[in-house]
Amino acid sequence: MGVQGLRTRRERAMGNSPLFYRQPVHLVRGEGIWLYDDADRRYMDAYNNVPCVGHCHPRVVEALQRQAGTLNTHSRYLSEVVVEYCERLMALHGDPLSVLQMCCTGTEAVEVALKMARAFTGGQGIVCSNATYHGNSAEVFRMTVGPFEPDFRRVPFPEAYRPIREGASESELCDLYLAEIEAAIEGFAADGVPLAGMLFCSIFANEGLPDVPAGFMRKAAALVRDAGGVVIFDEVQAGFGRTGRWWGYEVMDCVPDIVAMGKPMGAGLPLSGVGARPDIAEAFHAKAFYFNTTAATPLQAAVGSAVLDVIEDEALLANVNAVGGYLKDRLAGLVGGIEGVGDVRGHGLFLGVDWVADRETRKADREGAAEIVERMKEKGYLISNAGRFRNVLKIRPPLVFAREHADALFDALVETLEEASGG
Amino acid sequence: MGVQGLRTRRERAMGNSPLFYRQPVHLVRGEGIWLYDDADRRYMDAYNNVPCVGHCHPRVVEALQRQAGTLNTHSRYLSEVVVEYCERLMALHGDPLSVLQMCCTGTEAVEVALKMARAFTGGQGIVCSNATYHGNSAEVFRMTVGPFEPDFRRVPFPEAYRPIREGASESELCDLYLAEIEAAIEGFAADGVPLAGMLFCSIFANEGLPDVPAGFMRKAAALVRDAGGVVIFDEVQAGFGRTGRWWGYEVMDCVPDIVAMGKPMGAGLPLSGVGARPDIAEAFHAKAFYFNTTAATPLQAAVGSAVLDVIEDEALLANVNAVGGYLKDRLAGLVGGIEGVGDVRGHGLFLGVDWVADRETRKADREGAAEIVERMKEKGYLISNAGRFRNVLKIRPPLVFAREHADALFDALVETLEEASGG
Repeated sequence: MGVQGLRTRRERAMGNSPLFYRQPVHLVRGEGIWLYDDADRRYMDAYNNVPCVGHCHPRVVEALQRQAGTLNTHSRYLSEVVVEYCERLMALHGDPLSVLQMCCTGTEAVEVALKMARAFTGGQGIVCSNATYHGNSAEVFRMTVGPFEPDFRRVPFPEAYRPIREGASESELCDLYLAEIEAAIEGFAADGVPLAGMLFCSIFANEGLPDVPAGFMRKAAALVRDAGGVVIFDEVQAGFGRTGRWWGYEVMDCVPDIVAMGKPMGAGLPLSGVGARPDIAEAFHAKAFYFNTTAATPLQAAVGSAVLDVIEDEALLANVNAVGGYLKDRLAGLVGGIEGVGDVRGHGLFLGVDWVADRETRKADREGAAEIVERMKEKGYLISNAGRFRNVLKIRPPLVFAREHADALFDALVETLEEASGG
Repeated sequence: MGVQGLRTRRERAMGNSPLFYRQPVHLVRGEGIWLYDDADRRYMDAYNNVPCVGHCHPRVVEALQRQAGTLNTHSRYLSEVVVEYCERLMALHGDPLSVLQMCCTGTEAVEVALKMARAFTGGQGIVCSNATYHGNSAEVFRMTVGPFEPDFRRVPFPEAYRPIREGASESELCDLYLAEIEAAIEGFAADGVPLAGMLFCSIFANEGLPDVPAGFMRKAAALVRDAGGVVIFDEVQAGFGRTGRWWGYEVMDCVPDIVAMGKPMGAGLPLSGVGARPDIAEAFHAKAFYFNTTAATPLQAAVGSAVLDVIEDEALLANVNAVGGYLKDRLAGLVGGIEGVGDVRGHGLFLGVDWVADRETRKADREGAAEIVERMKEKGYLISNAGRFRNVLKIRPPLVFAREHADALFDALVETLEEASGG
């Protein structure tokens, strides 16, 4: 069936639910970093983080088949497969994170993380970023819609490229952003809203992968803990090797009290989770009724474990560091050469090119970035645009991305950026 | 590993997350209606509704394997597998329900259903039942915790066994319960909260499967629609043939405007969905930002479709009616014979035995019911206790339950009920 016919049927059956691209891609199969459309045209996937080990990895498929054919129930029976997975995953986290609550989606993980922070502290107020998205539920989406919610206070996220004060040094910037957090904490106190904690994406992915002043996260965490709150990091995008470390918080040198995980965790099977300190998990289970019928199942555990197997056995963290570092260096070389390339940022295989209309003023060029994404797709490369102004070209391929893929992507991107610059 | 050792490890890795039974069951495999523990002891599963087609059904396993090995992405690409599933599922619903939003869990489906009702009507107030549970998110759980939320009004659910007025006829009862809905609608109006709609489980499953006065649902729906609201039914427990009809709302003779589905939909793969009228879906997509990374995937669609295949090809609706009707008749015969059996209720293969301390006063015996559930498990039969007072023995096996299974379950249950009666 042609794209137009399918699109019409989709609108009738699925409503106007979001699609990528002016002319959407009709995909029929995937393998590794490749996706194929209905005309067998191949696209290099430099966008998707869920299939972190590559599309249709045989070990993931095998784990799904084996466990689905053996046992799959809810979590109110004892299951060794599930317990083993929880132990294994939490062993990959820093002390004192040791207890896992499995869920199905990133939104659910963030919901649970908020419940945990509130149950443990008895507080309600959450400090979050002013350009964030942590999920689609009514409660979680309150952090996105803003501007004012009595129990969510949104602070400017730390960034070096468009800083809160022009010309400030890195350590001055750090202090200025920390002062915003202090002000939020004081605002809660003034309003009589007891503090529950702070919730950030550990690498500020939706904000546009900003360069964060050194030491910011540790100092921010200390402010929050001193005021009686707990620190929650959203690792839904950053986790599972994306940055070249297991967790984005390692890049930021700050272990949280609660961590929300998702997307790549199940490689396409809905699987998310919340890791926590044991005392926080205890308060959560004592105060909050929580049960999730299709979470903490043997099927999720078997697949989650297969994902960890592949990341370890194929040495994907090393690959992310090597290929990600290589690609970032090549992209960084474009600054000054191509007019629209304002900045190149990111970690591991999660890179951003800040596309600007004017390099002096750093004016974000959202439409230009969106156009580049369309052109790249026409050439057979899938990327996206994101960030506070949606002008950051987002490069986030499966972790099995190799150096030759990086070279091909780079060449196509340079050609497209030059075309976009009218070059 | 023994149950105690595994339980200790589970507490360390998963915290105090809920478990069934004083001595939990350590399960290792399942097949059809049977579950097996680590000592290869067999349990008849008369509790689980998620594996509606039976544990580890080969067609479900095959669909998982095939699709996971072919393609699995998020829903912003076109996918014929996904569109076909949406079309097929919505064709099983009554007009004018035709648009499907897929999600991962029942909670998410109810979240979306609320968002749709509010986006479409521009209202906020939701009428719900006073003994309900629709999910674990902050927003959805507000319906459970009560007693007062400005935008949720909880009305007494309709029931015949412990009615709102003793001695009232069925039609009087119907009017009395409808008056409660009218009062809630008027309460919203008096408070200046515009009405969004009414949300009920179509068979009031958590309330204890009450016998509902004839015509109640249609008349309640008319009251809500006349006041500008929409009707939402939660089919997370009732749907997919559980009642002997595809949907619980068919039993109640009332098609809603929005329907939330879940649990059996993916036979253990996290899969849920919200069906809606096209105009409601349109308002939702126009007003609410909604995207769910691991929902509306080809994997979910392939498995969801396999579940429908099995229900149809194995004629499970006919089986539910035959075996469910047979078992209900046998259970109903216990009323008057065994002192604690106050009432027998339910639809299809979702039956409840209201266990009472005193048949005259109908005083619910929660502890007695819980003890019966424990004894049944010791005998190798898995059931549960539920309902407003948690005294209703809940029998809800996979839909492949056969007459001989019903006989074996019945015999074990009669023996246990007689022991519990001190007989």
